[in-house]
Amino acid sequence: MADQQQNPSGEDALIARYFKPLATDPGAFGLLDDAATLDARGEDIVVTTDAIVAGVHYLPDDPPDTVARKALRVNLSDLAAKGATPAGFVLTLALRRAEEQWLAEFARGLGEDAKLFGCPLLGGDTVSTTGPAMLSITAFGRAPRGAMVHRSGAKPGDHIMVTGTIGDATLGLDILKGGAVATALTGDEAARAFLIGRYHIPQPRNALALAVRDHASAAMDVSDGLAGDLAKLCVASGVSAVVDAPSIPISDACAAALARGVAGIERLVSGGDDYEILCAVPEARAGSLALAAQRAGVALTTIGQVIAGTGAPRFLDARGEDITLARLSYSHF
Amino acid sequence: MADQQQNPSGEDALIARYFKPLATDPGAFGLLDDAATLDARGEDIVVTTDAIVAGVHYLPDDPPDTVARKALRVNLSDLAAKGATPAGFVLTLALRRAEEQWLAEFARGLGEDAKLFGCPLLGGDTVSTTGPAMLSITAFGRAPRGAMVHRSGAKPGDHIMVTGTIGDATLGLDILKGGAVATALTGDEAARAFLIGRYHIPQPRNALALAVRDHASAAMDVSDGLAGDLAKLCVASGVSAVVDAPSIPISDACAAALARGVAGIERLVSGGDDYEILCAVPEARAGSLALAAQRAGVALTTIGQVIAGTGAPRFLDARGEDITLARLSYSHF
Repeated sequence: MADQQQNPSGEDALIARYFKPLATDPGAFGLLDDAATLDARGEDIVVTTDAIVAGVHYLPDDPPDTVARKALRVNLSDLAAKGATPAGFVLTLALRRAEEQWLAEFARGLGEDAKLFGCPLLGGDTVSTTGPAMLSITAFGRAPRGAMVHRSGAKPGDHIMVTGTIGDATLGLDILKGGAVATALTGDEAARAFLIGRYHIPQPRNALALAVRDHASAAMDVSDGLAGDLAKLCVASGVSAVVDAPSIPISDACAAALARGVAGIERLVSGGDDYEILCAVPEARAGSLALAAQRAGVALTTIGQVIAGTGAPRFLDARGEDITLARLSYSHF
Repeated sequence: MADQQQNPSGEDALIARYFKPLATDPGAFGLLDDAATLDARGEDIVVTTDAIVAGVHYLPDDPPDTVARKALRVNLSDLAAKGATPAGFVLTLALRRAEEQWLAEFARGLGEDAKLFGCPLLGGDTVSTTGPAMLSITAFGRAPRGAMVHRSGAKPGDHIMVTGTIGDATLGLDILKGGAVATALTGDEAARAFLIGRYHIPQPRNALALAVRDHASAAMDVSDGLAGDLAKLCVASGVSAVVDAPSIPISDACAAALARGVAGIERLVSGGDDYEILCAVPEARAGSLALAAQRAGVALTTIGQVIAGTGAPRFLDARGEDITLARLSYSHF
């Protein structure tokens, strides 16, 4: 019997080896308990949850450290858009089998990002599945009471602003799948690597979270495609919007793909996986937010304006004519 | 375009139809936002997460409302053992396809239990998978600062107490799989139904949570088997234990299976899925906790004693001789 106590189950041994080092918050109790505690300090605890599935949200042979980073960062991106400061996360890991090498790389990537974003592991559950691997993370942030930024709140006249560049990740996925973008960018290794990197490792804009909280009237992160997500923000706010499509920020690599005719605007605004902040900002606050973004080193671009109405957002081309979007965003079902 | 706004994606429509009615907490914002907030009111937020996978933790053709109840209740059971009052939960639902009838039944069961236990839905994520269905729930409870009951804290001399009865669920699973217990209990429909019910729908002991917080020195819920879970509590507390096996509470249905020779003590204490509270209680507090349990209508039984040492817990038979347990608990890997 003593031997059994010295040799905990495979599950417990894996947790102790790979995940205990990540549980740096005192409220995680070294992952030795059944629950964790969040000391709320009188603030609101902002809660968000996002799952990624092998073959759906990432490719089964993606590097394990990037899978871990993506799982955490898609949640960090939500906290950033809600104006919350990361406080920690819990992880559910469903695996077909426990492969030491995969887990070691996975835990390394997860630990590095947890440290980088100040968002320690608080607990989790490890289960077996006969299907594809799945990672579900619930992340916690702090915000002063009632200060979370909502999807609702956008008002006619507000600037519509977006961080970073749009459309990179969907082109990166196309390259990984050997699609038309891969062929068009043959030889341009820098562009290919950039786009693939944008698919593998989102760049959540947590550096801008407090400024978004101070200045935005509404915000959300772009995960399912700019067009669909803007439509959701508009519905929640009871408004509509007009977007000047040529203003949508795109990367040089994305521009190269566009120039070769293998992707159009519709692809960029409906592809998803951007994990940029989309926000509505009152005219009088737009300058302050732009300045804060500049200081934080985060690109921020005005792409349109909130208008009164209940129609879906319109996307206008360089001549001011409506672009017809057949598909607004990615849907699982 | 306006039509698209009127016809949200399948995913959003499913959420609006089935899950929005469950989001009764103001912090859930009607599931229309990307995050929820927990107003912590100066207390600790206790966080726990547990996932269940079709074919691993439940059978794919189990009634959908029981699948929902089990997913929520395994988490409520953790909150109960930690001495926390339920505050809400987030749900990740990974499904191969969205079947309306399954989802309707699932949401009904989930909503009923959320109401019954005062634990409303705060948010979630719905994703597609090519594998078996999986439900991951992260549940939140409240406890005064620092008051969460830990696995550590058990002291030599403490009573080891357990709620309800042990071993029912593992026998229920055997019946569902058409095993030896099914054959042995042929004709005894009441016993079969009781054991299957114990597998399908755990009975978390949240009614006893505050009393556990007031009286127990250490506690956890029994999910992977009494023997293995007691071993974990002992390791965390730096103690050992002696259990009087004949004192372990079993149901009449379980006793019938034992009498027919199709299950032994080892099966009962290593099978898992009990979702009862296991706790260590100082001698002077055992009477008070027993009284509180009586008032709450929860059976509570002393099954042994904490002793000094670091060996695995010993289980003694009616003659005081050691029972050799080859397997302490269920392990996923």
